[in-house]
Amino acid sequence: MVRRNAIYAQSGGVTAVINATASGLLETARAHRDRIGKVYAGRNGIIGVLREELIDTSKETAATVRRLRETPGGAFGSCRYKLKNPVADDPDIQRLFEVFAAHDIGYFFYNGGGDSQDTANKVSKLSQQFNHPMQCIGIPKTVDNDLSGTDTCPGFGSVAKYVAISTREAALDVASMSESSTKVFILEVMGRHAGWIAAAGGLAGDGRDEPPHVILFPEVPFEQPRFLEAVAKSVSKFGYCVVVASEGTQDANGNFLADAGTTDAFGHAQLGGVAPVLAGLVKHELGFKYHYAVADYLQRSARHIASGVDVDQAYAVGKGAVEAVVGGATDVMIGIERTRDDPYRWRLKHVNLSKVANVERTVPKSFLTKDGYGISARARRYLQPLIQGEAYPAYKHGMPVYATVKNQLVPKKLRSYEVS
Amino acid sequence: MVRRNAIYAQSGGVTAVINATASGLLETARAHRDRIGKVYAGRNGIIGVLREELIDTSKETAATVRRLRETPGGAFGSCRYKLKNPVADDPDIQRLFEVFAAHDIGYFFYNGGGDSQDTANKVSKLSQQFNHPMQCIGIPKTVDNDLSGTDTCPGFGSVAKYVAISTREAALDVASMSESSTKVFILEVMGRHAGWIAAAGGLAGDGRDEPPHVILFPEVPFEQPRFLEAVAKSVSKFGYCVVVASEGTQDANGNFLADAGTTDAFGHAQLGGVAPVLAGLVKHELGFKYHYAVADYLQRSARHIASGVDVDQAYAVGKGAVEAVVGGATDVMIGIERTRDDPYRWRLKHVNLSKVANVERTVPKSFLTKDGYGISARARRYLQPLIQGEAYPAYKHGMPVYATVKNQLVPKKLRSYEVS
Repeated sequence: MVRRNAIYAQSGGVTAVINATASGLLETARAHRDRIGKVYAGRNGIIGVLREELIDTSKETAATVRRLRETPGGAFGSCRYKLKNPVADDPDIQRLFEVFAAHDIGYFFYNGGGDSQDTANKVSKLSQQFNHPMQCIGIPKTVDNDLSGTDTCPGFGSVAKYVAISTREAALDVASMSESSTKVFILEVMGRHAGWIAAAGGLAGDGRDEPPHVILFPEVPFEQPRFLEAVAKSVSKFGYCVVVASEGTQDANGNFLADAGTTDAFGHAQLGGVAPVLAGLVKHELGFKYHYAVADYLQRSARHIASGVDVDQAYAVGKGAVEAVVGGATDVMIGIERTRDDPYRWRLKHVNLSKVANVERTVPKSFLTKDGYGISARARRYLQPLIQGEAYPAYKHGMPVYATVKNQLVPKKLRSYEVS
Repeated sequence: MVRRNAIYAQSGGVTAVINATASGLLETARAHRDRIGKVYAGRNGIIGVLREELIDTSKETAATVRRLRETPGGAFGSCRYKLKNPVADDPDIQRLFEVFAAHDIGYFFYNGGGDSQDTANKVSKLSQQFNHPMQCIGIPKTVDNDLSGTDTCPGFGSVAKYVAISTREAALDVASMSESSTKVFILEVMGRHAGWIAAAGGLAGDGRDEPPHVILFPEVPFEQPRFLEAVAKSVSKFGYCVVVASEGTQDANGNFLADAGTTDAFGHAQLGGVAPVLAGLVKHELGFKYHYAVADYLQRSARHIASGVDVDQAYAVGKGAVEAVVGGATDVMIGIERTRDDPYRWRLKHVNLSKVANVERTVPKSFLTKDGYGISARARRYLQPLIQGEAYPAYKHGMPVYATVKNQLVPKKLRSYEVS
């Protein structure tokens, strides 16, 4: 059996558990040395592959690779870089196959969202034209949970858990203060086009009279009077109101609230920030004192409260990717299949890459309450299992012990290449 | 020995551990039934005492009282309400003593920051004029850590731990993304007048080349060119920059950056938000892509990652308050005394209320690095012990199990009273 090398690249926004996927992939590859020689990680993702900046992961100790399971962020670096035109005469594509050839790459693992699955698919197709046979495997990752062909995306369960817990905790806080102080609390969460993360905020309560009282999804057109009415009603009924707002909250014309032209003291347009816009509305239209939080990177890097299920699945898809190539598979994404809701049961499956590429999965209408401000029982059945278990990292001196990687590059064999 | 009732009131912003103090106080009071009859909790703090809305804590089960140790927020409600003029002929003061007399209150426990210690002190002094002998005990609580007479304030250690961990996690995230995307990450934390919480962000790294690269304290006048230079230098050296900014960041004239006149799309002035102002600067003056998070209530309610030391101290000051009155003490705050840095050793002490009232403790110069953007070794020696230990709450279905209190009011005996 021929032994060939592998390239692993992380792509797009990182998560609390993408390194758990790396851990699963590297540990499993090390158990298959007869087939898989070196595993190179692209430094900062595909950009590093193009630049021939290949991290020799064999230099990392077994303890470090194990520790990656508990470490947030992307240990080898990631990037936002889309191959512009994945055809044979594109310079990036030609360079990629030069690098693949120079380093005897027989396996390409691409760990990312929809774009990355598309890229993996196209690279695989092109390998025949370049006469460079290789197996290409997509590995799912995205906190947005918008990838089709899989029950959930590794990374999402941990954000979901963080957002659900943070919402409940902050709700207890504002409930304590509401008599004489803050009456409305707004938590802004990620999700530009899909409201899965906002939906997870709904798990903070049982959905009847418990907070969050209003959830804003990108899938539900924002109507200012109706929103203000819901907030006022909640304050009147419970004394306070907790809002979880997706950063992608938009009106019926698709205008993002966050892009509503906020300017700062220097007259600069401010991007981002649906929470301050909503807070301003609440203050000026209803006169309520507010507080808001913007979770931003905290939510997707919160490894300290990662979901046990999510960590297990993230590790499993990395492991499954290696087992897939050993078993001869190519052109597939390692998906997660749910076989039971309660107790939650799942297994891995292979999904043809052409079926997942660039198909965005949004929150279906059946997952929303009638008024569009809450989640349905069906949504709870789907979401609840994904936040099960607390996969705590180890601690030393009160701080989590996260892996430190050497990230040692292998010597270059090719001329340098400018990534545009 | 005469048996009399007690009033316990939470005051000001709540914390992740103020209920641990309540738990310590109630459990200890229950062990001294010979001296302490009922413990009434003011509903929403002192406002509830004025309104004669007294929660009968004896209705809460032992299990609930125990569970309060793990529950964030203020279980009985808190308030921002300062007795305007604590003299004998002030209507609020007269009402207070009416309530004290009607319910045979012999013990007054006030759980809050500097203002509350001051109030406890004044109420104690006035009790002689009202011929209503009672013991008044102040119990420290404030995430801001700005109270004098105690090594630290319960509530602070947990915020410190949350901010240190969140900073480290977000730093790993931005480090992964910086090659092609976000280069500057800003975390806004609480602390309007004292930079203790911002200082805790410094524990995320070892302070040399590790993030956070810039910490902004209220105690250090903000200078725009120097700040931008520090950010640019960090990006040039490490590829990215992590900033922890106190909400109280201000210029040499005491103008808060957050009040710098930001207006939203509706032309409304926006309050709060030093992070967006800094982000705007970074974007427009340096051209770097940024992300920012505003931790707001999340930081002070994050019971899921509370510091073990903080929870222990919070419980201890509640217990100590009851033991103090049983021992005959009055007019004191239950303070924490550090007897050793490493390993950290502490014990309770009694501090005369007149010595703590309204004395604000800010971060001393010796705790800062020379450039004012980091924390010194001395600061680390002080801060490090306070974030030790992970006092995880119990979990069920992936969510923390927090206490639900009945909050049953005792029948009123007096006419109603309007709190202004």
